[in-house]
Amino acid sequence: MKFYPEIEIDIEKAAEFLELPPSRLEDLIEKRSLKRNWDEYYNIYRFEGHAPHLEDGTVLIDHHGSFELVRGFPKIKRAMLLEPSIKNSFSKINSVVVEEKMNGYNVRVIEYNGKLIAFTRSGHVCPYSTEWIQNLLEMDFFKENPELILYGEMVGPDNPYVQKYVYDIASLEFFVFDIRYKNTGEALPVYKKKEIAEEYGFRQVRLFGEFNINEAAEKVKGIIKELGKKGREGVVIKDPEMVLQPVKYTASESNCADLRQAFKFYNEAGRDYLFSRVIREGFQSYEWNESEEEFQQRCLRLGESILLPMKKTIAQVETGERISDDFQIRVRDRNVVYKFKSYLERLGLYVVFETPEKIGDEYVVSIKKMNKSTNDKTLAMLEGQLWS
Amino acid sequence: MKFYPEIEIDIEKAAEFLELPPSRLEDLIEKRSLKRNWDEYYNIYRFEGHAPHLEDGTVLIDHHGSFELVRGFPKIKRAMLLEPSIKNSFSKINSVVVEEKMNGYNVRVIEYNGKLIAFTRSGHVCPYSTEWIQNLLEMDFFKENPELILYGEMVGPDNPYVQKYVYDIASLEFFVFDIRYKNTGEALPVYKKKEIAEEYGFRQVRLFGEFNINEAAEKVKGIIKELGKKGREGVVIKDPEMVLQPVKYTASESNCADLRQAFKFYNEAGRDYLFSRVIREGFQSYEWNESEEEFQQRCLRLGESILLPMKKTIAQVETGERISDDFQIRVRDRNVVYKFKSYLERLGLYVVFETPEKIGDEYVVSIKKMNKSTNDKTLAMLEGQLWS
Repeated sequence: MKFYPEIEIDIEKAAEFLELPPSRLEDLIEKRSLKRNWDEYYNIYRFEGHAPHLEDGTVLIDHHGSFELVRGFPKIKRAMLLEPSIKNSFSKINSVVVEEKMNGYNVRVIEYNGKLIAFTRSGHVCPYSTEWIQNLLEMDFFKENPELILYGEMVGPDNPYVQKYVYDIASLEFFVFDIRYKNTGEALPVYKKKEIAEEYGFRQVRLFGEFNINEAAEKVKGIIKELGKKGREGVVIKDPEMVLQPVKYTASESNCADLRQAFKFYNEAGRDYLFSRVIREGFQSYEWNESEEEFQQRCLRLGESILLPMKKTIAQVETGERISDDFQIRVRDRNVVYKFKSYLERLGLYVVFETPEKIGDEYVVSIKKMNKSTNDKTLAMLEGQLWS
Repeated sequence: MKFYPEIEIDIEKAAEFLELPPSRLEDLIEKRSLKRNWDEYYNIYRFEGHAPHLEDGTVLIDHHGSFELVRGFPKIKRAMLLEPSIKNSFSKINSVVVEEKMNGYNVRVIEYNGKLIAFTRSGHVCPYSTEWIQNLLEMDFFKENPELILYGEMVGPDNPYVQKYVYDIASLEFFVFDIRYKNTGEALPVYKKKEIAEEYGFRQVRLFGEFNINEAAEKVKGIIKELGKKGREGVVIKDPEMVLQPVKYTASESNCADLRQAFKFYNEAGRDYLFSRVIREGFQSYEWNESEEEFQQRCLRLGESILLPMKKTIAQVETGERISDDFQIRVRDRNVVYKFKSYLERLGLYVVFETPEKIGDEYVVSIKKMNKSTNDKTLAMLEGQLWS
């Protein structure tokens, strides 16, 4: 059996736990599909890329030879056309539950060695989120339900990933949307999850109601229009029993907000990211059978979401300024600032942290993520370089 | 020396002609960067991908052991911001010539064994274009200048690649834009080219004028606005001596027309193709310092170019129809129809040719290029499949 300096796992035992042949696990390690955490969480591993039967970002915890999984959050597929998608996805049931899809970042929370820890979608332990959840969530739930994972959205302006000001949140909050079993990823039924979350006093994403399959598309359309007006993202449509896979759907205003953010950094933006947001507009416009005026408004909104941020970026670079993605974090323990900075740097980001400012018993730190590619390209164009 | 069944070239001699070590040429053959034509042009080879010092699509003709090149058309780089690009690209000269960039397809014409032949951009001998140029161009030029290549744009509605109805052309015409030397690719100066083309009675792309470097950006802006209104594509800005590389620039209406065509087949469209056209709008809008109203018009035009064709595609697929890209060709020799069909099929296209219709002494054939990916994706969405 080979020796993997970074991975100090008992391969025989881990393979047995994962129900894989040891050679398959060795393979995953060799291909660097199983990676170890740095720092104090060195007994926590994460699956990157495609591990067999495991969601991306699934975490494997090594309790000195006995193991535990924290299953990754399953990718929720998207409806392009509400009516046929709801009928097709939920054909075996009579009604669906509609919950709000909030715009923040997705974390999974468990207890580990007497402390709560927060995993990002990719399975990293995020030091910033981990500090926050100590204060946002009570420990009881985790002590009493060690086999469960809390899945929620971290939302609010003091957010190093997705800042949104539309939720009337002062700093940062955690909203539960799923509770699932660690090893299987199986989800609790919607109302059971809601009851438990209430019992422990957790904030939850909004539940709009349960609707008959035949009326759901129309109801969702109404909800989405209202959410859109408020700048909110969209909904997740769920089987109340959580046996069938949920489906997501978003507001035009949210798609356009994504585009505005992406075109500010036009040269960094993934082409598929841009494309998919544009495509959603086409399908929504088709399905909703808009009036000429509504359609013109949508075209204008789409065009502006693309061109306004680009023009602003070019103008800013022309003045000699450089564009950056500006965030703000707020912590009680100043050490978390340094831990979080080194965490982001390890992930390969180029970030500038301003000096922490003490406000009350907290430290607020402004962060700039520098977008070198867009800055450089814009400058090159202003200097008269040709595109290609 | 190895034996390459498809390539019957004398490697020693060809390598000497190309000024390459024979091993390097063998390498290119082995990597399939040098490919042979099928059919009657089996002594004509083309370079695919990156051959050393040769433009993509460069053609190598084997005259039974002596060789000749037909250099590929050099890629013309694009200005995103006119003013700085013109100043930077042409800093060594005082004035530039501005010619129209027509929207058709680019062919190179030479004489070969007593007949004219037309190469596409990639270096294939196009049977359709080859038939056409026999009638569009007189042979004298080629007999008298065997060392020169005629570069031009095939434009008009009877066009199997890019149909445009904006040029007031009944069927198909050839417009000269460059004359270059076969083996070196060196271009004749602009006015020399113009004089020769006039002498032989060739149609030429429009020459708008010669402008001082300091006024050129403003002049081009005016020209582009006029071209845009007529639905035409744009301009190529040239060093009159053709020593410095030309630069291209296009009208917003043309970028948007590309988008309309691409979003009709949204699932086939290259993400980079879409992205680059959108980006051009941002830079043009910035440089032209538009009024609020002009900017709104541009946003609306951009949004509509994306959403209208998509909605139309979805509606059409919903009715049970399938979308396709519809072309029409017109030939005198009915055999060319079959040759052209097999040519397109060899290039990997799925095309449906209608029965040729006799009109006067010509045959008109409607062609449908089927866009399976967009048809299938749209149908899947209408059936309630999820996006991903």
